[in-house]
Amino acid sequence: MFKDIKIGCSSSNTKYGTRLDTTIVKLEKKAIWSGLFTSNKFKSAPVDICLEKIHKNVSQPKVLMINAGNANAATGKRGIKDSEKLINEVSSLLKVSKENVLPFSTGVVGELLDTKKLSLAFKKCTDQLGENSWDDFAKAIMTTDTRHKLVKKEFTLGNQKINVIGVAKGVGMIEPNMATTLSFIFTDLKLSKIQLKKLHKDICDQTFNAISIDGDQSPSDSSIFASTSEKKSDIKKYQKKIKNNFIEVFRELAEKLVLDGEGATKLIKIKVKGLSSYAASKKIALKVANSPLVKTAAYGEDPNWGRIVTAAGNAGENEFEMKNLSLKIGEHKVLINGNLNPKYSEAKGKKEFRKKTINIEIKLGKSKKSALVMTSDLSPEYISINSDYRS
Amino acid sequence: MFKDIKIGCSSSNTKYGTRLDTTIVKLEKKAIWSGLFTSNKFKSAPVDICLEKIHKNVSQPKVLMINAGNANAATGKRGIKDSEKLINEVSSLLKVSKENVLPFSTGVVGELLDTKKLSLAFKKCTDQLGENSWDDFAKAIMTTDTRHKLVKKEFTLGNQKINVIGVAKGVGMIEPNMATTLSFIFTDLKLSKIQLKKLHKDICDQTFNAISIDGDQSPSDSSIFASTSEKKSDIKKYQKKIKNNFIEVFRELAEKLVLDGEGATKLIKIKVKGLSSYAASKKIALKVANSPLVKTAAYGEDPNWGRIVTAAGNAGENEFEMKNLSLKIGEHKVLINGNLNPKYSEAKGKKEFRKKTINIEIKLGKSKKSALVMTSDLSPEYISINSDYRS
Repeated sequence: MFKDIKIGCSSSNTKYGTRLDTTIVKLEKKAIWSGLFTSNKFKSAPVDICLEKIHKNVSQPKVLMINAGNANAATGKRGIKDSEKLINEVSSLLKVSKENVLPFSTGVVGELLDTKKLSLAFKKCTDQLGENSWDDFAKAIMTTDTRHKLVKKEFTLGNQKINVIGVAKGVGMIEPNMATTLSFIFTDLKLSKIQLKKLHKDICDQTFNAISIDGDQSPSDSSIFASTSEKKSDIKKYQKKIKNNFIEVFRELAEKLVLDGEGATKLIKIKVKGLSSYAASKKIALKVANSPLVKTAAYGEDPNWGRIVTAAGNAGENEFEMKNLSLKIGEHKVLINGNLNPKYSEAKGKKEFRKKTINIEIKLGKSKKSALVMTSDLSPEYISINSDYRS
Repeated sequence: MFKDIKIGCSSSNTKYGTRLDTTIVKLEKKAIWSGLFTSNKFKSAPVDICLEKIHKNVSQPKVLMINAGNANAATGKRGIKDSEKLINEVSSLLKVSKENVLPFSTGVVGELLDTKKLSLAFKKCTDQLGENSWDDFAKAIMTTDTRHKLVKKEFTLGNQKINVIGVAKGVGMIEPNMATTLSFIFTDLKLSKIQLKKLHKDICDQTFNAISIDGDQSPSDSSIFASTSEKKSDIKKYQKKIKNNFIEVFRELAEKLVLDGEGATKLIKIKVKGLSSYAASKKIALKVANSPLVKTAAYGEDPNWGRIVTAAGNAGENEFEMKNLSLKIGEHKVLINGNLNPKYSEAKGKKEFRKKTINIEIKLGKSKKSALVMTSDLSPEYISINSDYRS
């Protein structure tokens, strides 16, 4: 599958020694794409360049040029020049317009790119372009990730086999907003540009934008969703099936990010339901997900639910009323309409908190709407990673 | 000084064994007061009761009734009844109207008060009312605090000696909004109620509301500022001097809170200047103060300034523009108008990050306005405290 996507990876021998850290992806046929980028006001040079290409509406994504280890962020005008220099070189090597080369950098902030070493590395990537390097692609974009994240899926629409494949990276500096960390997802289903963009935004909102590790959003966050347009189908008829299948791929990648979260030992799923506003529900769920006190309690397997309610109240949503709040840990009701459930016991909560996945449900009203946010716990390992290592 | 403020402390023998954990403060003469409370939508029963008293405008602060170890929060209707029962008892014992008894509880969330033991303890407090128990007062309100926080100050207005004294508690679940944790500050300077309220709000905004330990705001946060009105002076003439002297007391208490922050090894001061809006400056400073990545870098003495800029950009303020951003660590310029300062070296930043107090300055424009926020670092000890201990 995806015979028209060629991938080459190599090592720049900069931050990670001889590990793969540079990637060139070449889309041989005309493809369409959608890009979502960090909403941090501080953006890396590559993100600024991609956004300008989108703004000008001139770019077809013929080449993706990615390096890991250095984000090329907070590098001022020099940073822009460095990325442009590499774009020009790759554009000449592959004989595509430089407008059609999209740059991505991830890693440490505030250091200039080693453009000499990166030039050589990207040259090597272009020499090695091949079809079967998806594993290498997933590995070469890693920074502090301990595992590479690759998800493939095949589904049928009528008698057509449709393929989706995606890679993602990122285990720290993660909070959802527009897109989280780097992710590149491809499908061969032919979609209009408008359909693709809408699907990308909707699906990110429920997947990459609904996870949080530490509430920090990087200046490099980029998500690319591209279609090679090989397979035609009745998009309208299969609308729901298409979306659900795409969501599965995005969600699986998102879960992999959380599970590989820096120092993570638990996956915490927080569902907020009953409010009429999805945005308010998600805001409350995120506030709980980002509470260091909730996250340390999860690490310590202490079902300290008072911290959950405290964090939820802190989201500042006016619809939040204690007298309407019911709380469940796993299947156990802790609070019912603001009052302690006499049948709840510490032992029940403890049992849930001992599990690898902790489910928390906060009900605040009668609406059927809900928002789900996933996060990891906060362990001493997180501090060890982030205090010892310039990631 | 403060002969008309009587204090009695005792132990309820609940959470903390025989340690002092209950306090009665009795204001013998008519005093005026200002109260600021948590803006968390989830409020403890005592906070709800205090707010109702303020709303009804019926209360003179004749008695403060404080217990540590149990916040009486998320306890529903039963929680309100329990606090009211204790108020009624104390009101009878001291022969003051129950309207004039203000309750405060701090500690674990989601457990019912042991009203039997607390009744006995408050009775003992009333039996022991005396003048010189300020140290005991500061100790009896502690929860996970490792040190008690008491600040006294004397200053002169004309030939009058004015006194200020304050106690505060709180080392976790701390983010500023309206008021942080419990604090009780008294002065003998006669002020009008309007003057007192305005001073309280302005000063809290610059002190208790400008510190953050973990970005969590408790349902119990309360700050009381009261005047015993013994000393008259020309308030208008000495306006600035009065405010500055009061600020010193509040700020010293706030600094003590941060330095005793759970697991804290560093005091981090973040100044944001140059923006035309104080609110925007403070929002950016707080976003930096609450970034786990900035806080772990401080703990690890790693001058990882990329994380500082990343967090600042994430505050979402529109006035934030990388091309206007200059960053200083201590006296060392790292970024000048968005570009790396060639004279900056890692060694310079490292030297600053090795200090006990780390000063960070973010300049974003030409205005003379600035906001200062104080926080602590994030250490493995924070996780150990919060994962091992139901605080």
